[in-house]
Amino acid sequence: MSKSDKEGVSRRDVLGTGLTAATVAGTAGLVTGGAAVFVAQPETARAEGEDNGHNKAFVPPGKLDEYYGFWSGGHSGEVRIYGLPSMRELMRIPVFNRCSASGWGISNESLQVLTEGLTPEGKAFLAATNQKTYVNGDLHHPRPSYTDGAYDGRFLFVNDKANSRLGRIRLDVMKCDKIIQVPNAHSIHGLRLQRYPRTGYVFCNGENRVPVPNVGKLLDDYKKWSSVFSAVDGDTMEVAWQVIVSGNLDNNDADYQGKYVASTCYNAEEGITVADMTASDKDHIVVFSLAAIEKAIKDGKFETINGVKVLDGRKTSKLGITVYVPVANSPHGCNAAPDGRHLIINGKLSPTVTIFDWTRFDDVFSGKIKGEEAIVGNLEVGLGPLHTTFDGKGHGYTSLFLDSQIVKWNIEEAIRAYKGEKVNPIKQKIDVHYQIGHVNATHGETKEADGKWMVALCKFSKDRFLNVGPMKPENDQLIDISGDKMVLIHDGPTYSEPHDATIVHKSKLNPLEVWKRDDPFFKFSTDWAKKDGVKLEEDNKVIRDGDKVRVYMTAAAPAFGLTQFKVKKGDEVTVFVTNTDDVVDLAHGFTIVDYGVAIELAPQATASVTFIAAKPGVHYYYCQWFCHALHMEMSGQMLVEDAGV
Amino acid sequence: MSKSDKEGVSRRDVLGTGLTAATVAGTAGLVTGGAAVFVAQPETARAEGEDNGHNKAFVPPGKLDEYYGFWSGGHSGEVRIYGLPSMRELMRIPVFNRCSASGWGISNESLQVLTEGLTPEGKAFLAATNQKTYVNGDLHHPRPSYTDGAYDGRFLFVNDKANSRLGRIRLDVMKCDKIIQVPNAHSIHGLRLQRYPRTGYVFCNGENRVPVPNVGKLLDDYKKWSSVFSAVDGDTMEVAWQVIVSGNLDNNDADYQGKYVASTCYNAEEGITVADMTASDKDHIVVFSLAAIEKAIKDGKFETINGVKVLDGRKTSKLGITVYVPVANSPHGCNAAPDGRHLIINGKLSPTVTIFDWTRFDDVFSGKIKGEEAIVGNLEVGLGPLHTTFDGKGHGYTSLFLDSQIVKWNIEEAIRAYKGEKVNPIKQKIDVHYQIGHVNATHGETKEADGKWMVALCKFSKDRFLNVGPMKPENDQLIDISGDKMVLIHDGPTYSEPHDATIVHKSKLNPLEVWKRDDPFFKFSTDWAKKDGVKLEEDNKVIRDGDKVRVYMTAAAPAFGLTQFKVKKGDEVTVFVTNTDDVVDLAHGFTIVDYGVAIELAPQATASVTFIAAKPGVHYYYCQWFCHALHMEMSGQMLVEDAGV
Repeated sequence: MSKSDKEGVSRRDVLGTGLTAATVAGTAGLVTGGAAVFVAQPETARAEGEDNGHNKAFVPPGKLDEYYGFWSGGHSGEVRIYGLPSMRELMRIPVFNRCSASGWGISNESLQVLTEGLTPEGKAFLAATNQKTYVNGDLHHPRPSYTDGAYDGRFLFVNDKANSRLGRIRLDVMKCDKIIQVPNAHSIHGLRLQRYPRTGYVFCNGENRVPVPNVGKLLDDYKKWSSVFSAVDGDTMEVAWQVIVSGNLDNNDADYQGKYVASTCYNAEEGITVADMTASDKDHIVVFSLAAIEKAIKDGKFETINGVKVLDGRKTSKLGITVYVPVANSPHGCNAAPDGRHLIINGKLSPTVTIFDWTRFDDVFSGKIKGEEAIVGNLEVGLGPLHTTFDGKGHGYTSLFLDSQIVKWNIEEAIRAYKGEKVNPIKQKIDVHYQIGHVNATHGETKEADGKWMVALCKFSKDRFLNVGPMKPENDQLIDISGDKMVLIHDGPTYSEPHDATIVHKSKLNPLEVWKRDDPFFKFSTDWAKKDGVKLEEDNKVIRDGDKVRVYMTAAAPAFGLTQFKVKKGDEVTVFVTNTDDVVDLAHGFTIVDYGVAIELAPQATASVTFIAAKPGVHYYYCQWFCHALHMEMSGQMLVEDAGV
Repeated sequence: MSKSDKEGVSRRDVLGTGLTAATVAGTAGLVTGGAAVFVAQPETARAEGEDNGHNKAFVPPGKLDEYYGFWSGGHSGEVRIYGLPSMRELMRIPVFNRCSASGWGISNESLQVLTEGLTPEGKAFLAATNQKTYVNGDLHHPRPSYTDGAYDGRFLFVNDKANSRLGRIRLDVMKCDKIIQVPNAHSIHGLRLQRYPRTGYVFCNGENRVPVPNVGKLLDDYKKWSSVFSAVDGDTMEVAWQVIVSGNLDNNDADYQGKYVASTCYNAEEGITVADMTASDKDHIVVFSLAAIEKAIKDGKFETINGVKVLDGRKTSKLGITVYVPVANSPHGCNAAPDGRHLIINGKLSPTVTIFDWTRFDDVFSGKIKGEEAIVGNLEVGLGPLHTTFDGKGHGYTSLFLDSQIVKWNIEEAIRAYKGEKVNPIKQKIDVHYQIGHVNATHGETKEADGKWMVALCKFSKDRFLNVGPMKPENDQLIDISGDKMVLIHDGPTYSEPHDATIVHKSKLNPLEVWKRDDPFFKFSTDWAKKDGVKLEEDNKVIRDGDKVRVYMTAAAPAFGLTQFKVKKGDEVTVFVTNTDDVVDLAHGFTIVDYGVAIELAPQATASVTFIAAKPGVHYYYCQWFCHALHMEMSGQMLVEDAGV
């Protein structure tokens, strides 16, 4: 790194003085010596208070946003719901993390979601290490379910790269209702959904190559390790089938016809060091034929590994279920255009995007043409192209990690230029701050792409915000794409690490305001209540069952149905609490002091928690969600008797 | 609840049609029948895009905020750093929660902070229940340290109501470096700091009355339970002394002279049901004399309980360390005015604020005058007054929970009115949305109160934002108080539950951009490295020590110093990783797939994690903080051999 860079020279300042920003781009530049050529552009930020178009994005107090943004929480493990264009965080949805506020990872209901779908190996690992659940996740790609290429408002699917999981969020209540750990695959990274006729399949890329099965064999024989592609049934959350591939799977996307899925792969070399992995100047994409795969499964061509039907789709396979098309080294983003016809592969280490025509894959799979003949364009866009989004008006918007820019380009013109026509498909470049990863436009991944707003998810923020110490926020920027020119509107600092986002118009969603009492989310509690002959909405009682104690109580502002209960030290206590208030937003909570117990109770919800009464004495429980003028008085006492005292 | 309310009628609509909003105020109204009289006022929200003053608060891309806001995360257990006036969340600081992103609760360094200061009973509870740490907290009051009544930028102190803890955040690195569990006290709620000569003492209210000590005795004899007031030394984070009081301690505040601390108390009745607790029409404040307490400690008038010097400061005590002053039932907020002379007690169930003169407590303690004679004002402000903040120009701004308003009033005029003068101290009321709790102005709790901005932390948001399901965000509103009239500028949805906030001008803080290598935060790792003769910044090696394995590696974009290491199934493995990059914002992370391991590595930081290698096979570790164009390739493999395979 250069000296000036070590000292944290401001990229803003660099731009202001007209110096090239190569030193800055260099902070995350190629070790291989690729020069980060940077053309300084005028800053988009104006003087304080001056209108840069932000009034268009201003949502005054009392007015509603137009779009829901579903933001990945990255390695924070959660999903965040944003409002757009205001870019305000409206809600967090705990998924792979533990959440102190909601009791996610504490309540029995959440622990069922977190653990029931783990693999036997995952469950054995947690048991051997005395953990109820994994406490972390790395959530990259939140994707709303489709019907016929448009968002249908049923589910949001999310991956976990850290512990190889797939999660599903119900959009009617905005809660995660299912999590599975995907067998055989190692580290679920790329995730996209079947678009047609509906979702359908959830396509999950197992990024890392490992032995299959991964039980301690072949440790020193990395040439025999494999990356595994999985299709999960989004309705049942069961793995439908898997395909073993060559190279490391990166990102994938599906067509709008329900026929093909493609995935970028890096490390076609199948090495295990950075030098090995980048030795060749070519990697590849792999294309999967859904019809061929389903036929191969039907024909029994699979091997069952860890309970899953696994097909061989490596380069050497004769099954005809995959084709490999060479592209420049280390491609990254894989994005189907809303025109229904084109697929954009982003070069990362190559300064290009490659355009494929989905319709040509019929001929590729039948052997009439080579894979390369499905390529209809190859456009130089700038340094470090990672992802492309779309406005539905024929443009691609590609994030350039090294240039810290977004480039707007015309798809049809890029195709014509590839054929030799003299046309410049590049329309505009805009600076972003800094080191952008994903980029997403409103409905850009649907046939209803509307070209209104775009968000740039930047990995670094450096001096862009008040200094908050050695760990800096990321920076999610809002860009107006409704006109001819992209206009930067807003800088949005975010906690580590919004990896990706999708944006859904409010007309597509209609969540419940209060829970329905018969929601399956309360199954743990309703099952026990049935056994104990208890009405959750009415009864307040304590049931002793050997050294197990079940405590049922209601919560209605400003009092719990039970203001005291007594247990013995060492008892296993389960407390079931039902919020009987049905007023919108009148949430309660249930916290027991010094017991590490806290759960949320939205209106009409039941939740429960199980713990050992290991600490004797008087322990208050209280409502932690401000509910009433007498909220502070909404409490009671758990009296824990110690026979030895 | 009324029918219209159950159906979620919009308060916005109610106001718009000119109806009284009694039905809405009623959602959280008094059960005791106090009528929530509400006078409709014109809405502050304007038509979309119209300027309501928001341009003044607009911070364009590339410009910095003027203030740091330290936001409580409530029962999310974290602290959030905001930028003001933009109201953007700049960073989260994990404290009492577990954090998937940063590895707070996973790394050895964080586990030391989370567990070393627990009481023996707290440690025993975690051991008996197989938990490494508490996983939740309820953080209400973030307070920056003072020197001579002004913020000095050293520390931020925070309470945990859920598990009776006090935390300290270092403002040079914005990380929590100490947590203690306070013995004898049950549920630390109110927290404020010694202002003069410096912090000094951290005053912690143990809210709930319990047996002292709380070991299983006196379970059925609640009249003998007590609330405990604690003074913690902010430098050593050790409890200096405690005082047993009468009633339940609520909020406290200290004077600007270093002589007195006052606390509101509810439940002077010392009951345990809501009916008991609110039976009398009077509760009290308790005032503590620091000099008298320090003398009593010096004179050996204390009892040592659980290692802490405890004084009797109940109503019946003869020690002369406390005085009790009756005030209307259930007072809540307790706020020292920046004039250095006045203390405001907020009535909650009474529609009044009571003004005390700190200087009169000398005569109260010496017995010259009664406690009531320290009262110099009593002003009717509206329904449900909870907290008051200040502009340094003589005004108090009091939050009204039931009215969902803030009232601006003049302190001197209120004192004159109390003396009988015909003057109306009420200057303005402004609607907030909805059910406000805390209210804080820029530097409002210091002698440098500057009267620029104020935030209203509202507990409900109902239909104020896009519907995100049964659980709604809170709403933190930004109000311009620089002119004669308060002007609502911005609605800020927040995750459960920003309980309180303090706002510090950027000139007061100067955090480090990268860690210093000799920071005591890395002590766990540097101690081990010393024992093992390892240089953390340079060495990459694996040390086997029986069935314990210590793995040392560096991280420099885009590679770890070790790309592979091998252990045996069942080994206890500790991995120490040092980020040797010193570029601002160039963070790395270390995640092991399917192992529930993830830690953060800001520039120049070391962190470590210990786990049992319970799962055989190939397990990738990777950098989860986007660091470089070849970030995806920054990985390696932990090979776990299974002797049985």
